[in-house]
Amino acid sequence: MSDPISPTFEGDYLLTQQGPFKLFSGATLQPAQLHYSIYGKLNEKRSNGVLVCHALSGSARVADWWEPFFQHNAVFDLSRHCVIGINVLGSCYGSTGPQDTDPVSGKPFGHSFPLLSLRDWVRSQAILIEQLGIRRLHAVIGGSLGGMQALQWAIDYPDRVARAIAIGAAPLTAMGLALNHLQRSAIRTDANWNGGNYYDGAIPLSGLALARAIAMCSYKSAELFEERYARNPNRNGEHPELSMEDRYDIGGYLDYQGAIFTRRFDANSYLLITKAMDNFDPATGYRSESEALSRIQAKALMVGISSDWLFPAANIRALTVRMQEAGANADYVELESNHGHDGFLADLDRMAPIIRQALE
Amino acid sequence: MSDPISPTFEGDYLLTQQGPFKLFSGATLQPAQLHYSIYGKLNEKRSNGVLVCHALSGSARVADWWEPFFQHNAVFDLSRHCVIGINVLGSCYGSTGPQDTDPVSGKPFGHSFPLLSLRDWVRSQAILIEQLGIRRLHAVIGGSLGGMQALQWAIDYPDRVARAIAIGAAPLTAMGLALNHLQRSAIRTDANWNGGNYYDGAIPLSGLALARAIAMCSYKSAELFEERYARNPNRNGEHPELSMEDRYDIGGYLDYQGAIFTRRFDANSYLLITKAMDNFDPATGYRSESEALSRIQAKALMVGISSDWLFPAANIRALTVRMQEAGANADYVELESNHGHDGFLADLDRMAPIIRQALE
Repeated sequence: MSDPISPTFEGDYLLTQQGPFKLFSGATLQPAQLHYSIYGKLNEKRSNGVLVCHALSGSARVADWWEPFFQHNAVFDLSRHCVIGINVLGSCYGSTGPQDTDPVSGKPFGHSFPLLSLRDWVRSQAILIEQLGIRRLHAVIGGSLGGMQALQWAIDYPDRVARAIAIGAAPLTAMGLALNHLQRSAIRTDANWNGGNYYDGAIPLSGLALARAIAMCSYKSAELFEERYARNPNRNGEHPELSMEDRYDIGGYLDYQGAIFTRRFDANSYLLITKAMDNFDPATGYRSESEALSRIQAKALMVGISSDWLFPAANIRALTVRMQEAGANADYVELESNHGHDGFLADLDRMAPIIRQALE
Repeated sequence: MSDPISPTFEGDYLLTQQGPFKLFSGATLQPAQLHYSIYGKLNEKRSNGVLVCHALSGSARVADWWEPFFQHNAVFDLSRHCVIGINVLGSCYGSTGPQDTDPVSGKPFGHSFPLLSLRDWVRSQAILIEQLGIRRLHAVIGGSLGGMQALQWAIDYPDRVARAIAIGAAPLTAMGLALNHLQRSAIRTDANWNGGNYYDGAIPLSGLALARAIAMCSYKSAELFEERYARNPNRNGEHPELSMEDRYDIGGYLDYQGAIFTRRFDANSYLLITKAMDNFDPATGYRSESEALSRIQAKALMVGISSDWLFPAANIRALTVRMQEAGANADYVELESNHGHDGFLADLDRMAPIIRQALE
């Protein structure tokens, strides 16, 4: 059960629901398998579970993307906390996704994979958490899409979450919806897209790379780009002023980010997950946002990132105020960071004390 | 010579240079034909010429895109000013561009069209202005790429420009370079791109539409998008929460903007012009930016737009300070507008008095 990546890793598991999993839309998904990872051990009362929800391209392997939080007990103290990561349905990291075989057709689901919502992800996770014998989570934590899940947990399962920590998360603005729309368009523009049924042929790599490159611009701040890349020519020695193909450094960076992403992510998963992100709205399935927020019993911490333009800090602050007005015990903290939205992954030294304190 | 669009329109002309036009890069262009439009009349001394430079997708027909500036003498008083518009080389509105026939190959230039720079555009315009017998322009004005031309004019031909008015123009930041790079990638991702040689086949429409949609996000402000589109479903009655294809209103808007753009613009022109925009740097061809800026003799007005995130007002203010430090007579004004970069086209009521005053 030991793992080379993290000495504290306890194991990787799969939970498969027998029978169809009913989705919020009314559609069903079968099979519905969840990949999850456990770091540390559940205590006797099973009261020390900390569910860490991943963002768009993350996985159940929390220590793969929040590794420093495990070092020197920076945030997670595995002598006290049992950290659980669960890959969301529709992703490509072990839970059922569009690349898996649809037992009805015998072919990959592809573009016929049903639409998913935050409510589906959280309900599937709640079933898993129940299977683990956890009546109430010590905390649910996440950044970006992970933060949306933390909020959705606090709304949908108020008595099963003691603390909810959501970083850089709120319903997307019109600009955020625009950027996700462009990313999906990029994938669909690819010559190999083939309506999402590309698993037995060429993969829409350049579309997915472009989607990622667009996303990277929204994850980072203009200041950070200026600081790191400015107007420098690409570092491999290109001459952007002399040739149409030669790039500035920022172009080389974006192309590289796009290319490495295509080696690890699936285009249909990208569509499904960005679509769920688009549709995140606390009011979903309730009479109003206020009714939804009034359900929250967890101590909630909302974290805005000062230079985040995808989920502007002001919007997260405003959402916190609406939570308070609905009667929730919610606090707002702002992470001072020039990393933009990615601050929750990149500025961990500043992030750590905020989360550590909220876990007490 | 009358024109239905504008009662003050005097005429459309073509100027063709005999022999090759030498470009700043060392390459040559042949033929080099400029399409230009004249509104009003040159006075006897030919001292009332106002050159209005267009932005990325504009044309020589100034009254087509700055129409309100001609009404009621809002900005241009054609009893006093003679307004001249010149389509930039490489564009697709009458001046020589990649869709034209290369006399050497007998086929459209396509992707083999030489790289252009701001210096080339301005030099070709200076030749034309000389042909018109204008020794010194009363003013050169432009927004965005047009503003870059106005600045380049003041630098390259200091004694031939009395006033230079540049709105929302400065060298692109790393974020701006990133966004242009993504737009060119979108075009190249299109299945019909064919290395830019698509004139006798299918056109890379979806790539060009996506490029335009990305650009629209950078031309507008997040506030304006929020005000106009918020999280509303597409106005034609789509259900983004129920279907992968259904869109939010902002998605419908961007798709529409992309689609109408493909009817009026050429993908190779788009690449050439965004590339020239990338490469705009006052220092080009001089020892330093400071040396270049010290050449300016025109009274210069630099206009920043408060909500512009493509050319942030702070950068335009900073450039103005560097102009002043280099000894130029430069002023800075900020247009308060929530329209973003497009404020120079969209917020004309506020823009008009600023330019009108600068023209005195």
